[in-house]
Amino acid sequence: MDLDFLRRMTIPAKTKIVMLILDGLGGLPMQPGGLTELETAKTPNLDQLASLSALGLTIPAAYGITPGSGPGHLGIFGYDPMEYEIGRGALEALGVDFDLRPDDIAARGNFCILDENGVLVDRRAGRLATEEAIKLADKLSSIKVDGVEFFVEPIKEHRFAFVIRGTGLGANISETDPLKNGVKPLRATGADTASNRIAQLINIFVDRATQLLAGEKFANGILLRGFDKLPVIPKYQEIFKLNPAAIAVNGMYKGVSRLVGMEVLQFPGKTIADEFAALEENWQSYDFFYLHVKQTDTAGEDGDFDRKVKVIEEVDGLLPRLTALQPDVVIISGDHSSPAALMFHSWHPVPTLLYSNFVRPDGITSFGERNCLKGSLGILPAKEVMPLAMANAFRLAKYGA
Amino acid sequence: MDLDFLRRMTIPAKTKIVMLILDGLGGLPMQPGGLTELETAKTPNLDQLASLSALGLTIPAAYGITPGSGPGHLGIFGYDPMEYEIGRGALEALGVDFDLRPDDIAARGNFCILDENGVLVDRRAGRLATEEAIKLADKLSSIKVDGVEFFVEPIKEHRFAFVIRGTGLGANISETDPLKNGVKPLRATGADTASNRIAQLINIFVDRATQLLAGEKFANGILLRGFDKLPVIPKYQEIFKLNPAAIAVNGMYKGVSRLVGMEVLQFPGKTIADEFAALEENWQSYDFFYLHVKQTDTAGEDGDFDRKVKVIEEVDGLLPRLTALQPDVVIISGDHSSPAALMFHSWHPVPTLLYSNFVRPDGITSFGERNCLKGSLGILPAKEVMPLAMANAFRLAKYGA
Repeated sequence: MDLDFLRRMTIPAKTKIVMLILDGLGGLPMQPGGLTELETAKTPNLDQLASLSALGLTIPAAYGITPGSGPGHLGIFGYDPMEYEIGRGALEALGVDFDLRPDDIAARGNFCILDENGVLVDRRAGRLATEEAIKLADKLSSIKVDGVEFFVEPIKEHRFAFVIRGTGLGANISETDPLKNGVKPLRATGADTASNRIAQLINIFVDRATQLLAGEKFANGILLRGFDKLPVIPKYQEIFKLNPAAIAVNGMYKGVSRLVGMEVLQFPGKTIADEFAALEENWQSYDFFYLHVKQTDTAGEDGDFDRKVKVIEEVDGLLPRLTALQPDVVIISGDHSSPAALMFHSWHPVPTLLYSNFVRPDGITSFGERNCLKGSLGILPAKEVMPLAMANAFRLAKYGA
Repeated sequence: MDLDFLRRMTIPAKTKIVMLILDGLGGLPMQPGGLTELETAKTPNLDQLASLSALGLTIPAAYGITPGSGPGHLGIFGYDPMEYEIGRGALEALGVDFDLRPDDIAARGNFCILDENGVLVDRRAGRLATEEAIKLADKLSSIKVDGVEFFVEPIKEHRFAFVIRGTGLGANISETDPLKNGVKPLRATGADTASNRIAQLINIFVDRATQLLAGEKFANGILLRGFDKLPVIPKYQEIFKLNPAAIAVNGMYKGVSRLVGMEVLQFPGKTIADEFAALEENWQSYDFFYLHVKQTDTAGEDGDFDRKVKVIEEVDGLLPRLTALQPDVVIISGDHSSPAALMFHSWHPVPTLLYSNFVRPDGITSFGERNCLKGSLGILPAKEVMPLAMANAFRLAKYGA
């Protein structure tokens, strides 16, 4: 649905919506005729909720398109992932839970090794240990140029997120990473005036960084690529008139939630049970909760069918704590599929459950891919789930008379 | 489907199509595990026709969107209800069966009470009796300003439809209704030259009306708001190359039919049986018939599950009179859902039946929400039903060679 239309139609209400996302939920059988991970899992609580719900299968981005976590989440959050694109630089910064702001420019950074003539010897600095990279990043934090702030946020080994904070920055900046060894790093240039100004400051930063790192054992230079800003995405408060909270452990999911206006909740611990505890703890303070379970995706990407089944069963065991809160509307879905049989994200539609007292219940007594196909939500774009949830929460006005 | 494409593809034929709309047809069970109104109703004739038909569920406007009767009808008529919006003023005029023309400007009017200083004392004139309002409206019909015609059409109590007829009128006119008591009514102003000219004529009209109503007991002023024109909608004759007739009792449905080019048939009586008689009577003269049954919606909005069931059964009893005419294509659907459990219009998809000798029959032997979900039309936007009906009527050319 068009966001301008949605903004016009949404109305406040006292109802509460919970969106439980099992990352990479959709799966595949390991052999023809077999069951998927979700179909294999023993899920009495999910099945009970399913019997009172409308089921369906969501297409995260478009037919055949395998989404990353960014577009996968934007879709289930109600946005068109083909319209709002989160660039790689911005994703890197979100991924380390950096508080990336709308005016910031982000890039992907590498520590690298240069020879005495400044020629690239190793673009990845021998994949130096992360703890060494953290020390080097610390050194660079002292650099200030012309009132513009720079952030170097280590990720893993040679990789870091690079962020430039100022006002009126342009992000049409060319990469300094030549993407091959044996040549010198490139100088940044800007495609327009606002970008060119920043490109010059970046070049100054890179020069100072090279000076500061001179003589370092593990890396003595930096490379930058994928300059971009966050897309400007209308916030949940504005589009849905919700006061939303996000419960997630990993940085990228916190980042994407923050991007759409959710308040990222702080809570002790990192287990799924800890996340459900955070939901209980904060129940009175918000009217929308996004709860993210990462472990289904990790198991799928590891090709570990049984572990993915177990994670689903663990979530099922915790589900009564969610339903005990008596939310008006519950969405249970994934941001995409991650079948253990494939060991990566996939394009397959995602099993989706929409519970409220006002759905036309399908009476299907088991939550799984093939059962969802029989459900009354049909096969639908992920971005249409939020409007349906909003309708069930009595948060959409009547259109026309 | 894009109307320009449809216009290009449609061809004349001798086939006849009947669209039977049970207003607010879709329902909900009154308790989990129960049946909907349509599933409850004993409908041997609908079931017999269903077994020869393709079934599906239509989304009137968009996922989660509850449409009013205007957008609901535009959808099933084959138009995108998000593109063609009928404003409140125009709807009021259509609702009293006023022959609203494309150049007319319509507004919602209130009779009101002003004190001796012209300050609003009661915006609704104590909800005066409709027969008093009719007398006051009569008085105002004598006002003429500068070759522009004004119409004051009483609706109920203080409410009336206000229409301005002239040429080249602009509808960007501000409201005279301040929406609260204790202040004077506002003067109309226009946002552009064409609108401003009319705004001044409206102010003159309002002044004369106030003079004419001075000393009246029940109301002595008028308020106007929601100025708009009808949307310009391509007609059935042009898009579908059909010669269409509408059979409806209530004003708004006649109005929306007229808007898309249907001829609104006059017939004696107001019962559903009278409507079926009008269908028989006019069978030779048109090739498309829209027959509107209002009573399903009224029962749903009254929360009267049993009455809605009975209305459906009444229609079922009359269905043989329709099928005896041997239409080539029959559509049976609703403009939206009106579950008795909710007592208002809702967003739920609407059970839809498409009969012709050339559908791929689903062999489903009972017409109801959950059975329609198994049907070969799937879950589809309401606006796609007309192209399917046209195909089955051999009224669509082959696309490409």
